[in-house]
Amino acid sequence: MIFQEKLDKIVEKNNSLVCVGLDSDLNKIPKHLINKEYPQFEFNKTIISATHDLVCAYKPNSAFYEARGEQGIKELKMTVDFINKKYPRIITILDAKRADIGSTNKGYVESIFDYLGFDSVTLHPYLGYEAIQPFLDRKDKGAIILCRTSNPGAGEFQNLTVDKQPLYQIIAKHVINNWNTNNNCLLVVGATYPKELAEIRKIAKDMTFLVPGIGAQGGNVEKTVKAGLNSKKVGMIINSSRQIIFSTNPRKETVKLRDEINRFRN
Amino acid sequence: MIFQEKLDKIVEKNNSLVCVGLDSDLNKIPKHLINKEYPQFEFNKTIISATHDLVCAYKPNSAFYEARGEQGIKELKMTVDFINKKYPRIITILDAKRADIGSTNKGYVESIFDYLGFDSVTLHPYLGYEAIQPFLDRKDKGAIILCRTSNPGAGEFQNLTVDKQPLYQIIAKHVINNWNTNNNCLLVVGATYPKELAEIRKIAKDMTFLVPGIGAQGGNVEKTVKAGLNSKKVGMIINSSRQIIFSTNPRKETVKLRDEINRFRN
Repeated sequence: MIFQEKLDKIVEKNNSLVCVGLDSDLNKIPKHLINKEYPQFEFNKTIISATHDLVCAYKPNSAFYEARGEQGIKELKMTVDFINKKYPRIITILDAKRADIGSTNKGYVESIFDYLGFDSVTLHPYLGYEAIQPFLDRKDKGAIILCRTSNPGAGEFQNLTVDKQPLYQIIAKHVINNWNTNNNCLLVVGATYPKELAEIRKIAKDMTFLVPGIGAQGGNVEKTVKAGLNSKKVGMIINSSRQIIFSTNPRKETVKLRDEINRFRN
Repeated sequence: MIFQEKLDKIVEKNNSLVCVGLDSDLNKIPKHLINKEYPQFEFNKTIISATHDLVCAYKPNSAFYEARGEQGIKELKMTVDFINKKYPRIITILDAKRADIGSTNKGYVESIFDYLGFDSVTLHPYLGYEAIQPFLDRKDKGAIILCRTSNPGAGEFQNLTVDKQPLYQIIAKHVINNWNTNNNCLLVVGATYPKELAEIRKIAKDMTFLVPGIGAQGGNVEKTVKAGLNSKKVGMIINSSRQIIFSTNPRKETVKLRDEINRFRN
């Protein structure tokens, strides 16, 4: 199934735009799991089991797994295998922020889509369309391009003015108008910048955005949802990581976020 | 030892600006190695053993190892362990082209510098200084920022005009003037664009460049060296991957490239 179709179905089924970020930093997971053989996987399994009917997507950030070397990669694969087997309708996103030259990207395509088995990946735009093409050629997979990121210093380059427009809008336009021939591109737009989010929505038509920055990073749900929804009242994958997975009740936190988002969708 | 000091010493000792790119694609390594327990590592060991007195650096590209999942990560670590133990004076670069938000980058710092044990890493600039800081804070390690990449479509964003200058020059200036407080920044500038290389040298003073694009990608050695040397006739780490490692005689190819570069240094 192609990415956008799979996403539309799970958003409708679970009535949710919530993505839970599996940023399962070994230093932060509960003490009783640390001595297990696969602590990150065991932790993820508890989170997924508690939230699978409340979300549209799961998004592990690769850095927290790579920090543990081959063992982390093994548990990352166990996690996505678990989701694909038990909850195959849910979207999986590897937040890896990759991008190399074209011939090298084939290695990442193999790693992320074929070996690990993710539905989609986040990508840096800086090397251009020609480099990114091995990802875009995978019609069944989502290519999620960084546009306006959620970090405090994001504007250093992203807000530079090119032809009287900020660079992030130029990048959005290239992706929307030229890169999206297989209808498998998405944009990353941080919830911490609702004004920019609204501007990108104006030019992106109904393209889906991955929206990080809710929760621990301080993004406001009402402003984010109102700024980012598309004409069908969807078009956003809204991610929260730490605020959900390290809370005392991840299910309750996910219900709360889903409901708060849905309140502003209607 | 700090990165630049280690680099200066090995460049002098081996009288070489050559970096061999260990892009050890499993599909391309010799058939007699494929059935070994650690084929990528065995292949790398033969390349390193044949060239260690001729180079200043080795640069594995992470994608070719990640393509094999945890097994590839294991062999990547075995490779850098082998270099660090047997040839500890040679610089190691992980060509990983990473960059996430600040709190997440700590995972990559841990993975690349502490777990794997590399001296340096390549980084995307798009998220800005504030995000990249966990890398820059490691005073002993090199942070190699993508500036003008070697791929054919590199200009799509990198040549956009900002304040009457191309974006890649703006990025170079930010790195040179603001990011380099620990004197551990380098820039990636492709050999396939000698004109741009010369322009960046003008503004970068003596900063070291990592220069990919020689060999299979078609960069010209004479033009590259003449455009990129700094005032001390060094300041470049010139990488060749496929043309050396998949040749019938990697040592001979490395001697040839080292000597050709040195001819234009003198």
